Amino acid sequence: MSIKASKILETFPNPTTDRDYVIHMRMPEFTCLCPKTGQPDFATLFLEYIPDQLCVELKSLKGYIWSYRDTGAFHEAVTNQILTDLVTACQPRFMRLRAEFNVRGGIYTDVVVEHRAPHWTPPTPVHLP
Amino acid sequence: MSIKASKILETFPNPTTDRDYVIHMRMPEFTCLCPKTGQPDFATLFLEYIPDQLCVELKSLKGYIWSYRDTGAFHEAVTNQILTDLVTACQPRFMRLRAEFNVRGGIYTDVVVEHRAPHWTPPTPVHLP
Amino acid sequence: MSIKASKILETFPNPTTDRDYVIHMRMPEFTCLCPKTGQPDFATLFLEYIPDQLCVELKSLKGYIWSYRDTGAFHEAVTNQILTDLVTACQPRFMRLRAEFNVRGGIYTDVVVEHRAPHWTPPTPVHLP
Amino acid sequence: MSIKASKILETFPNPTTDRDYVIHMRMPEFTCLCPKTGQPDFATLFLEYIPDQLCVELKSLKGYIWSYRDTGAFHEAVTNQILTDLVTACQPRFMRLRAEFNVRGGIYTDVVVEHRAPHWTPPTPVHLP
Amino acid sequence: MSIKASKILETFPNPTTDRDYVIHMRMPEFTCLCPKTGQPDFATLFLEYIPDQLCVELKSLKGYIWSYRDTGAFHEAVTNQILTDLVTACQPRFMRLRAEFNVRGGIYTDVVVEHRAPHWTPPTPVHLP
Amino acid sequence: MSIKASKILETFPNPTTDRDYVIHMRMPEFTCLCPKTGQPDFATLFLEYIPDQLCVELKSLKGYIWSYRDTGAFHEAVTNQILTDLVTACQPRFMRLRAEFNVRGGIYTDVVVEHRAPHWTPPTPVHLP
Amino acid sequence: MSIKASKILETFPNPTTDRDYVIHMRMPEFTCLCPKTGQPDFATLFLEYIPDQLCVELKSLKGYIWSYRDTGAFHEAVTNQILTDLVTACQPRFMRLRAEFNVRGGIYTDVVVEHRAPHWTPPTPVHLP
Amino acid sequence: MSIKASKILETFPNPTTDRDYVIHMRMPEFTCLCPKTGQPDFATLFLEYIPDQLCVELKSLKGYIWSYRDTGAFHEAVTNQILTDLVTACQPRFMRLRAEFNVRGGIYTDVVVEHRAPHWTPPTPVHLP
Amino acid sequence: MSIKASKILETFPNPTTDRDYVIHMRMPEFTCLCPKTGQPDFATLFLEYIPDQLCVELKSLKGYIWSYRDTGAFHEAVTNQILTDLVTACQPRFMRLRAEFNVRGGIYTDVVVEHRAPHWTPPTPVHLP
Amino acid sequence: MSIKASKILETFPNPTTDRDYVIHMRMPEFTCLCPKTGQPDFATLFLEYIPDQLCVELKSLKGYIWSYRDTGAFHEAVTNQILTDLVTACQPRFMRLRAEFNVRGGIYTDVVVEHRAPHWTPPTPVHLP
Ligand SMILES: [Ca+2]
Ligand SMILES: [Ca+2]
Ligand SMILES: [Ca+2]
Ligand SMILES: [Ca+2]
Ligand SMILES: [Ca+2]
Ligand SMILES: [Ca+2]
Ligand SMILES: [Ca+2]
Ligand SMILES: [Ca+2]
Ligand SMILES: [Ca+2]
Ligand SMILES: [Ca+2]
Ligand SMILES: [Ca+2]
Ligand SMILES: [Ca+2]
Ligand SMILES: [Ca+2]
Ligand SMILES: [Ca+2]
Ligand SMILES: [Ca+2]
Ligand SMILES: [Ca+2]
Repeated sequence: MSIKASKILETFPNPTTDRDYVIHMRMPEFTCLCPKTGQPDFATLFLEYIPDQLCVELKSLKGYIWSYRDTGAFHEAVTNQILTDLVTACQPRFMRLRAEFNVRGGIYTDVVVEHRAPHWTPPTPVHLP
Repeated sequence: MSIKASKILETFPNPTTDRDYVIHMRMPEFTCLCPKTGQPDFATLFLEYIPDQLCVELKSLKGYIWSYRDTGAFHEAVTNQILTDLVTACQPRFMRLRAEFNVRGGIYTDVVVEHRAPHWTPPTPVHLP
Repeated sequence: MSIKASKILETFPNPTTDRDYVIHMRMPEFTCLCPKTGQPDFATLFLEYIPDQLCVELKSLKGYIWSYRDTGAFHEAVTNQILTDLVTACQPRFMRLRAEFNVRGGIYTDVVVEHRAPHWTPPTPVHLP
Repeated sequence: MSIKASKILETFPNPTTDRDYVIHMRMPEFTCLCPKTGQPDFATLFLEYIPDQLCVELKSLKGYIWSYRDTGAFHEAVTNQILTDLVTACQPRFMRLRAEFNVRGGIYTDVVVEHRAPHWTPPTPVHLP
Repeated sequence: MSIKASKILETFPNPTTDRDYVIHMRMPEFTCLCPKTGQPDFATLFLEYIPDQLCVELKSLKGYIWSYRDTGAFHEAVTNQILTDLVTACQPRFMRLRAEFNVRGGIYTDVVVEHRAPHWTPPTPVHLP
Repeated sequence: MSIKASKILETFPNPTTDRDYVIHMRMPEFTCLCPKTGQPDFATLFLEYIPDQLCVELKSLKGYIWSYRDTGAFHEAVTNQILTDLVTACQPRFMRLRAEFNVRGGIYTDVVVEHRAPHWTPPTPVHLP
Repeated sequence: MSIKASKILETFPNPTTDRDYVIHMRMPEFTCLCPKTGQPDFATLFLEYIPDQLCVELKSLKGYIWSYRDTGAFHEAVTNQILTDLVTACQPRFMRLRAEFNVRGGIYTDVVVEHRAPHWTPPTPVHLP
Repeated sequence: MSIKASKILETFPNPTTDRDYVIHMRMPEFTCLCPKTGQPDFATLFLEYIPDQLCVELKSLKGYIWSYRDTGAFHEAVTNQILTDLVTACQPRFMRLRAEFNVRGGIYTDVVVEHRAPHWTPPTPVHLP
Repeated sequence: MSIKASKILETFPNPTTDRDYVIHMRMPEFTCLCPKTGQPDFATLFLEYIPDQLCVELKSLKGYIWSYRDTGAFHEAVTNQILTDLVTACQPRFMRLRAEFNVRGGIYTDVVVEHRAPHWTPPTPVHLP
Repeated sequence: MSIKASKILETFPNPTTDRDYVIHMRMPEFTCLCPKTGQPDFATLFLEYIPDQLCVELKSLKGYIWSYRDTGAFHEAVTNQILTDLVTACQPRFMRLRAEFNVRGGIYTDVVVEHRAPHWTPPTPVHLP
């Protein structure tokens, strides 16, 4: 894949819009800069969503993640920003983003953010034994 | 077992139709081709279902999985297609398919799809301590 | 313990019938024969139940498990059969049996079966943080 | 700590009675005797409770556990007995005891027993993503 | 970071107040003294909360944890105290603190305490398959 | 594979006799009978060998393992017997067999047996950092 | 098995004296008393040996382990004593005993003791890649 | 990367020929066909080598692995063949290939093959505590 | 145990001086201060030694570890210092100390130091398969 | 710590030069750029060394690692370069660097490089059982 750092998130049509199905993505290579000290910060991102009409395209997602490499960003703010951008791009029925940041000062921090579409109702989960 | 790649999914009668019981199957040897580049993709499939009148026959399931070996297939589409074929073959009360694809471009992707029969209600789960 | 293979499941009186409490048992040494090929099959059994007036006696349970050693048995049928026999023997308020079979043809299969007594209601679970 | 084997369970006042909070304790050193054969049995005990006016004192709890060292005790009965004694001593809002016994005859057995105070309602759990 | 032991917990404005999102923090370096014997006790703290108008500042949190290093503190009381101080500082919508103490006398103890704001309702969780 | 229980171990010509290379095989489904009590015993076998002119054929190895299913056998003796039979069949340069038996009487037992050909010298191992 | 606590270690003839092979045994249920405080101590014993003319009999080994249940014993001394008794009973070519004691005072202690027969030379180990 | 299945292994000059250093590569996506039944086989390849004048180029290695997708190949023969091809391509000082095949008939098989250059002596390993 | 922080390491006579046996101790509760910033540092200590005439007494070892709680100490220096003090106290045939420090600035550091008595020769290790 | 990206590696005097002791460091936050595509690469670095007169200073090591963030670098070349720079800075008796790179094209690559001082001989390792 020839990929570039880019804020543009591309999408493709959801091949099965008549089902509420789930796409999980794990991205262990997120890095940005601490806005106070300029030092690199590292995190693993966990994305899971139920697509509506559009799916997130893998290659552009990698470029989007890459675009934070030289950006100063607080943990709480950057996690909210990425979710907002992903929601804007693909308008999912539901989306959750978890960012697990590497330890700083002996403290481990994760941030979890969710979006759900206004008129969408989650299907009752089936718990199998 | 002498097995051939085949799209035909065979079934056998469910031996205990008066209970909602669950069959889990894990298939770590799924491979297809990337429709963009022609390169091999690899996944582990997790199937779990509550049979109605029919159960999926193991040997034909292996041949069915094998039939994707030389097929170009997007992650989202192929997972939906396999579930649809399995539902058509055995008409289960409930079925869930999870496909865990190997990493591509530093991103790990899983797709999870479910089917539930129109008039079937899942039994209230019993949570034991 | 001197033990023999036997279909007879013995019981003893539940010492505390006024509580809904749970007994979990794991039996990693179940083996039977494949009814198609005659080859040995292997499984781990997970039993969990809420006793009513009777508890399953450990020594006879071991002999009962042993009695399948030379029996041809399909995965789905044998799991249902064992649950039915255990329910007949001790009439529990609730019982669940999970059989995890060893890999065959590259596919791992588990079967999970449950029984609940007609007029019994499971206590609302208490989820502690 | 100078400790003795003893059936006496001591308590101390709960420092924060206005909250439903939880205390978890794991005791991997429980041993008693099999009442049939006189051989030693071993278990790990998991206790979790929501205190009301009293908390269980650690040192006396250790002595109480120790007091079973030379006692013959069936798995189901001894787990119920320990819970009953603990409830009598500290009258908790909720208490759960899980005893995981070591393997006997190739079978692993756990017993789980609960108590909840008559007029106490568990708080609705908050499930964070 | 130049940090000092201090009881002062600093905060910063929550960058996204219009969402109920979650911040998890793990602090494996808590140590205080046993109030009975004066010996050191060790614990790992797990904090998770939904901020309202304020977030807890990382550097001051580290100093606050450090401030217990020479303090005598019972397990149950100190966990309640830390939660109370954190709630006072940032007035979260929800907060949970779990303290896992190192083994003493062969017994492992955890304490879990929660706070929820009076008029706040937790969002119905979305359970994805 | 259509397989039968059989004491006959088949072989095939080693495709690369000019190298000392290693074949490892793990067989988690060995079962025989205790010669004292007649109860089933279970073990996992670990075989590793450097072939000379012959390799052990997989299908016949499975049948050979199966042939012990109804045989009374002490742990120490049966492990030595299997190694002897395998050495007789394929005359390897080196062979090691490890049998890990399931727990009996609270004690876990493994037996490890080796054979090396009279005039064969093991190559000096290369330990890479 | 009907077993009694006993200091007598029984043996049986080694079925294959012409090979240096290894027997490993793990015994997770050792308990004795602290000679200073009288409190119970717990350990897991790991025994491995190369038999000469005699093997240690499993049932008597269990009884021997059990015989320490009411004995005061220091960690270092008891591990040496058990090895000495086992060596006296079966005169092995080589024997190693490792005792892993449960944590006391925040410190985990293991003791490892070995015996090798005067004129026995260990075979040069074959390290397979 | 645009990659094609190909038997051609490309190389590039070793950037540091004056040191014996090690390159480890893990390739979990090897698949070929069983020459007896035509069914897919799966393996993970572990390659480790000390380069001399040439290093193996990653992209061509992926294509080379891919070239076995439609080839019938016995476990022992294919592992030797791949090593031979890699040695021919880059003439390393030392090379080891381990192929871990997926379970077939309840038996797990690995094959390990090594090459060392005629006049090369491995450096004495430094074992750090 | 009533224990105090103290630099005095007590010993007791080795009960079996005629064997080279090994004592391993793990101490997960070491804490000192960073000499540059005054902030707390945390480490786990792993001690292993072959005693000569004296063994280290557990209770005084705990007090000795505790004595560093308010001491400024560099990682490399403090590990060497502790080994030196232990060697002075019990004059072992061999002693090794490993200190695993908690992460600082994204870097994990361990220090390992050894002492061997001048005229002592380690026994040739017996490597069992 | 206020830190800057910098090629300068600072050192401090080894506090105990009369012993061959070992310092291990793990740095999970190394990132550079692929010199072919410009995309980010990620690796974990494992450094272990025996200091002579100088030790590597932690803060400058972090800045040195950081200095590769915007550098194009091949796996094999950059690992050799970092070792060379570290050796130049502190002239250790022995040093080993292992770089574990994240997966690219389905292949995981590690590179391991060593340096030993010309007249230094590694102490015979003591292998404790
Ligand atoms: Ca992390
Ligand atoms: Ca499931
Ligand atoms: Ca995967
Ligand atoms: Ca359960
Ligand atoms: Ca299994
Ligand atoms: Ca257990
Ligand atoms: Ca959580
Ligand atoms: Ca802990
Ligand atoms: Ca086992
Ligand atoms: Ca232990
Ligand atoms: Ca091996
Ligand atoms: Ca495998
Ligand atoms: Ca190391
Ligand atoms: Ca650590
Ligand atoms: Ca990695
Ligand atoms: Ca060790």
